[in-house]
Amino acid sequence: MKLNAEQLRQFAEEGYLFFPNCFSEEEIALMRIEGEKILKLDRQEVWREKTGAPRTAFAAHTFNEVFRLLAHHPRLVEPLEQVFGEPVYVHQFKLNAKAAFEGDIWQWHQDYGTWARDDGMPEPRAMNIAVFLDEVFPFNGALMLVPRSHKHGTLQAGHDKLTTSYPLWTLDQETVTRLCAEAERPGQPGIVAPTGKPGSVLMFHGNLVHASAPNITPYPRKIIYLTLCAVSNHITKFTRPEWIAHRDFTPITAVADEALLEYARAHRIAAE
Amino acid sequence: MKLNAEQLRQFAEEGYLFFPNCFSEEEIALMRIEGEKILKLDRQEVWREKTGAPRTAFAAHTFNEVFRLLAHHPRLVEPLEQVFGEPVYVHQFKLNAKAAFEGDIWQWHQDYGTWARDDGMPEPRAMNIAVFLDEVFPFNGALMLVPRSHKHGTLQAGHDKLTTSYPLWTLDQETVTRLCAEAERPGQPGIVAPTGKPGSVLMFHGNLVHASAPNITPYPRKIIYLTLCAVSNHITKFTRPEWIAHRDFTPITAVADEALLEYARAHRIAAE
Repeated sequence: MKLNAEQLRQFAEEGYLFFPNCFSEEEIALMRIEGEKILKLDRQEVWREKTGAPRTAFAAHTFNEVFRLLAHHPRLVEPLEQVFGEPVYVHQFKLNAKAAFEGDIWQWHQDYGTWARDDGMPEPRAMNIAVFLDEVFPFNGALMLVPRSHKHGTLQAGHDKLTTSYPLWTLDQETVTRLCAEAERPGQPGIVAPTGKPGSVLMFHGNLVHASAPNITPYPRKIIYLTLCAVSNHITKFTRPEWIAHRDFTPITAVADEALLEYARAHRIAAE
Repeated sequence: MKLNAEQLRQFAEEGYLFFPNCFSEEEIALMRIEGEKILKLDRQEVWREKTGAPRTAFAAHTFNEVFRLLAHHPRLVEPLEQVFGEPVYVHQFKLNAKAAFEGDIWQWHQDYGTWARDDGMPEPRAMNIAVFLDEVFPFNGALMLVPRSHKHGTLQAGHDKLTTSYPLWTLDQETVTRLCAEAERPGQPGIVAPTGKPGSVLMFHGNLVHASAPNITPYPRKIIYLTLCAVSNHITKFTRPEWIAHRDFTPITAVADEALLEYARAHRIAAE
């Protein structure tokens, strides 16, 4: 998947791009089944909310074939190679559960803030590409983005180890208020919260400020976050476990576009 | 304001009605200024979140002229007289702040569950009519309703005194999951979350199941909830303070439709 000139311009200007229905229902059904299995596993890569509900599963691409294919998928890898102008590697792979009723808050933050401070990543030449496994409604913890906030570089942040089970470098209320006010346009607030069917994809700049509210509905909101980093921009500090911030900087070679579909069909045949 | 046959049918079927821009910008500007003043008051009627941010101010219609006019406003009073077929009185008057960054959750509940259990209200012949003082966006704690859930009568509930600063009879996750599943329609989830400009009005049945998520954005979401009860259905138990569950069952005589506007204009002239 290649971005056109208008998409590249919009990404540079707004800091994000949204692709509704980027993966088919058949591809997503496969990933959803595998995702649910992984969130039930009792292993160090699966973190839980304070209530015990799953919060985040790391590194599923290293132990699950479906997610290995996803991490090498041309619809995700090619746009990022294009933006960075060089090959990319997998810096992080997360499945965020945002479980029904129990999925907790992610406070306002920039991803690159964590990658720089904790992992010694030289430049914000890495970013998240989110794949919706469930439908994202306005009310089940949709990701909220502050458009254009990536232009401010890396903002001052505090290390929040208390609010949730996951430590995060978060922004203060004054900063978020200022950025949202700057992002307002006539008749429009300074926050966008893309919603869409399973299979939709959202890519956003490593410095784009974002957050998500708790999910208090019966509708889970599982999203895969694939973080791809330009190979020349690999991390230099190894303070976090290898399965959170990967140390294998091998450039990704994309699989075929139909790889997930073929797996789904072969798997179904094998299961019958 | 009178409801037409289609609105009456929709209310009976769905359990709610939404009126965008029911009050003008001038009327709302007046109420917003007064509302902000009230939320700063240090008096027993103003409850705070655990963080200290304002949560709910009760009974403002008893000590503020603008809100006295609102509680007697024909756009709110007449539809409820029409639905109940008799005069109404003010059972409760709340300003819910859902403050920027700090407005906390309201768990899933039915209002009549509280009125019946705590106040001995005989029948669900009272309801809330919500007036948006701020713009309600999908992301700043919009009220979530489960359509048609009012048809289940009063559901079993537990008394939650821990989650927030306000005790509430709340429904369990299984019940909410079941009601949402029943409320689903092809391509539509079992939750609606009406959004709209300040001045929009939402009326909903006393047994309609609803909740709202925390507000983690810089956009406050102040809503006035005027609870009107059919006079013949007045409460019979006085366990809560008078300023939470009123004991004056005098039928409301509506003021003129332009009463708020006239107050705004007179007030502005007086202030100059």
